[in-house]
Amino acid sequence: MKEAFSFRLIARDSAARLGEITTPHGRIATPAFMPVGTQAAMKAMQWRDVRESGTEIVLGNTYHLMLRPGAERIAALGGLHTFSGWTGPILTDSGGFQVMSLAPLRNVDEKAVTFRSHIDGATVVLTPERAIEIQRLLGSDIAMQLDECIALPASPEDTARAMRLSLAWAERCKLVFDGSRGGALFGIVQGGDIDRLRIESARALVAIGFHGYAIGGLAVGEPQAVMLPVIGEVAPHLPEDRPRYLMGVGTPDDLLESVARGMDMFDCVMPTRNGRHGVAFTRYGEITLKIARHSDDPRPLDETSPYPAARNFSRAYLHHLMKAGEMLGAVLLSEISIAYYQELMNSARAAIAAGRFAQFRAETEAGWAKGDIPAR
Amino acid sequence: MKEAFSFRLIARDSAARLGEITTPHGRIATPAFMPVGTQAAMKAMQWRDVRESGTEIVLGNTYHLMLRPGAERIAALGGLHTFSGWTGPILTDSGGFQVMSLAPLRNVDEKAVTFRSHIDGATVVLTPERAIEIQRLLGSDIAMQLDECIALPASPEDTARAMRLSLAWAERCKLVFDGSRGGALFGIVQGGDIDRLRIESARALVAIGFHGYAIGGLAVGEPQAVMLPVIGEVAPHLPEDRPRYLMGVGTPDDLLESVARGMDMFDCVMPTRNGRHGVAFTRYGEITLKIARHSDDPRPLDETSPYPAARNFSRAYLHHLMKAGEMLGAVLLSEISIAYYQELMNSARAAIAAGRFAQFRAETEAGWAKGDIPAR
Repeated sequence: MKEAFSFRLIARDSAARLGEITTPHGRIATPAFMPVGTQAAMKAMQWRDVRESGTEIVLGNTYHLMLRPGAERIAALGGLHTFSGWTGPILTDSGGFQVMSLAPLRNVDEKAVTFRSHIDGATVVLTPERAIEIQRLLGSDIAMQLDECIALPASPEDTARAMRLSLAWAERCKLVFDGSRGGALFGIVQGGDIDRLRIESARALVAIGFHGYAIGGLAVGEPQAVMLPVIGEVAPHLPEDRPRYLMGVGTPDDLLESVARGMDMFDCVMPTRNGRHGVAFTRYGEITLKIARHSDDPRPLDETSPYPAARNFSRAYLHHLMKAGEMLGAVLLSEISIAYYQELMNSARAAIAAGRFAQFRAETEAGWAKGDIPAR
Repeated sequence: MKEAFSFRLIARDSAARLGEITTPHGRIATPAFMPVGTQAAMKAMQWRDVRESGTEIVLGNTYHLMLRPGAERIAALGGLHTFSGWTGPILTDSGGFQVMSLAPLRNVDEKAVTFRSHIDGATVVLTPERAIEIQRLLGSDIAMQLDECIALPASPEDTARAMRLSLAWAERCKLVFDGSRGGALFGIVQGGDIDRLRIESARALVAIGFHGYAIGGLAVGEPQAVMLPVIGEVAPHLPEDRPRYLMGVGTPDDLLESVARGMDMFDCVMPTRNGRHGVAFTRYGEITLKIARHSDDPRPLDETSPYPAARNFSRAYLHHLMKAGEMLGAVLLSEISIAYYQELMNSARAAIAAGRFAQFRAETEAGWAKGDIPAR
């Protein structure tokens, strides 16, 4: 029998945490970065390369998958793991966030969020119960409650209303969640940038009881100076023995700052999206490959990277691929950036284990601040 | 020291030939299919997967590479092998064909072809000598003479003029070709669909003397019923001990028919181009993945394929990827089609060695004619 979900806290270094999550499809060392495979595929990447980049868990988007190809269809085809060919753990979101950001004509009431599909215009009703059912049909290892995620800045009234609606939906999700196959259900802390609402949300969710807790409603356009204090306020109200997931975050710097504040899991489209636009994340910071300075440079992006593509292809070649519009440019830069994110998480875990996370963070941030190697 | 170019004829089965080409970057079993890596990249594929698909040699396009990133730049970066990361043999065309098909405002005279770059509008002069110099700078294992390739149908006068100009350029290319690094230079038989011109071209090229001989000016829109007789007329006039390359061909059926007429090498963008448009080549013929019949089909494209991607992903998943516009669809279908082409060539070689090529061809064509497995 497959193992059921569990979390083990292995070490702490100040607020930073080293842990391990067990799921029916394998283990995940935390802090962990989850690349986003929106439509049952990682954009511009093959699953083998997702794995070789050091990735242990990926995120799938309920909103996209429910609309196309459909949750019942994926279930009939054996679930998302069998359908896509990704055999490791999968976390699925609830669809709520993307209804808010992508669907036209959406309407939220106590019962459900109703929206038009951006693909064919069909009217779709997503209740908390249906969100959990879809995630069961997909066969995800970690399911998320349905929530209402509002954009910042928002009025205190709107923020409070959305947070309380999300709490009500959290209870309904918990009621219908079937953990018999070993999967997990996470609650989502809402409350915008208002500390008392965030703390109210966290306490109420912990009272309901979930396998893990996410902080939602951040990374929605607000500066890091708004985001980090919210994390700092919320984290102490979450139980030590459950993983903490910061949704939709972020830059490498966001990740280290959030690990320093006790967060364990992250997801973001940034490394793959930037890769498709010719930008790579490296220990030298972000590198824009399209600019002319790279056109004759035989050096790789990072000769010390553990990932072969970062060592084996010249900047000149990557520059050429992007200028020529070759798909391989997007492929290689997506891989290189994901691999850098995973290398960063791996190094963060080692630093926490060694009790030197603060030093590691300072050194890494200094490397980014120093910038790219001189042109030649 | 790297080995110099050579060709060994291993077996014959009626007119079909089994052989082996040696180049400075490795050996190639013939009949051989060469996928086209136009811009120093195989569209939608990684070099590792090009290799794993069974590919031993790829084609690079002089026209594209001379314009971007430039031949001198690639030379300064170590040549096309080092630049791209493809370590096997590379055949480069001369640029002539693509000047005719892609460049605006082209003009051909005895001295050169002059054209505007389709990238930046710059005027470029391509002489036979410059075509050879560019291919030397790229470091190709097999270089092609510059020729004038006209579209069919064409008048006998135009056809004869272009053939004789190509012969004159063949001589000039031979004069400046430097074989000291072990590479090869191929001449190109022209003459449209006029047998006596084709034979005149072939004899004159053989008199000049090349490492191999190509048939050009086919696969330019004419039906197979025009192409195959030309091959049948030309092949007997080419020396037995040199490889014969049919340029720009073609469908799997074109390949088997041409192998039956004594051709050894082929190149075509069809498997990768069709792959990007959702069509796969298989032993069941061409399969269009976008159509609804595949949407719920858990079966792979071909469970007997030696190539993992053809066995491991369901038709339903490939259908979904194409409908959703995921790059991975183009990636997997390009790989699967290239792998099928290579499997076909591998089987053809085995059949020639066993003296049963005619039977193999009949069985294979019957499989295509039978079509795809029944829907379910």
